[in-house]
Amino acid sequence: MRIIGIDPGIATTGYGIVESDGHRSVAIEYGCVITDKDLPGPQRLQCIYRELSAVVSRFEPQVMAVEKLFFNKNINSAMQVGEARGVAILTGMHAGLDIFEYTPLQVKQSVVGFGRAEKKQVQQMVKVLLNLTKIPRPDDAADALAVALCHAHSGTTLNALTRRGTYV
Amino acid sequence: MRIIGIDPGIATTGYGIVESDGHRSVAIEYGCVITDKDLPGPQRLQCIYRELSAVVSRFEPQVMAVEKLFFNKNINSAMQVGEARGVAILTGMHAGLDIFEYTPLQVKQSVVGFGRAEKKQVQQMVKVLLNLTKIPRPDDAADALAVALCHAHSGTTLNALTRRGTYV
Repeated sequence: MRIIGIDPGIATTGYGIVESDGHRSVAIEYGCVITDKDLPGPQRLQCIYRELSAVVSRFEPQVMAVEKLFFNKNINSAMQVGEARGVAILTGMHAGLDIFEYTPLQVKQSVVGFGRAEKKQVQQMVKVLLNLTKIPRPDDAADALAVALCHAHSGTTLNALTRRGTYV
Repeated sequence: MRIIGIDPGIATTGYGIVESDGHRSVAIEYGCVITDKDLPGPQRLQCIYRELSAVVSRFEPQVMAVEKLFFNKNINSAMQVGEARGVAILTGMHAGLDIFEYTPLQVKQSVVGFGRAEKKQVQQMVKVLLNLTKIPRPDDAADALAVALCHAHSGTTLNALTRRGTYV
């Protein structure tokens, strides 16, 4: 199964593509869509859509796993992350992917083994699990790989947000 | 100039299309995209994209005016509105529309004449300005028409978020 993990954001959207049989996983590709901060919001969203679509079209994942983010700080930044998240999800829907979402707690539990793990520990485990020589950079790409690994380990379709073919 | 106004939301996205010469405006069409609350989020977003795209394709506005919402309550609802907003904006970008955004304050100032106007007063003015026999229903459609009228009255391109042709 090939999974694209997404860590959405208006300035930086991390993506990480993992091929996994549920036990062993390899990193196929990872990186970030970085949008120009001087561009208006709509153009930044279109940039995310266009670049993620190109990544999906090139690496052909079957599943998208998106980080479900929570905020306790700025409500306007929550709105902006929501915009990026909506566009990223639409990219997956348009490409016919099944879409799953995981909370940071689920990602940490799955990748490190406990929900209160620190960011650094998650990144270290991403490196180990994917047999990489170093921690993937930038952070958003490492986070996206962690979400993809979380789905790879889930072995379940219980939290599927969509079923391919049931909705067009 | 033909303007589509948008009042975004994951459950209900209002739209209102207005033809205006800057002085006189007529309502071409208005309504809501209502998404099934039992559907998963990604499918609701795709529904918004698909139905708004159909409206844009049928009525061919040149400009999209989107309400810029602020929240002081639930941060998760801000994220969800953000998702719907991102998808609505992408619909406009994909159709090559110029996209503008207006705060509720701007809409009220433009449509009623003062920024602390009540919702009911805005709706009443929408009815008067568009020469309708009654206040448009549902509320989200009336709000969307108000945003479109706000753009019609703006007579300015200063707050343009995008310029057609400068970005593909």
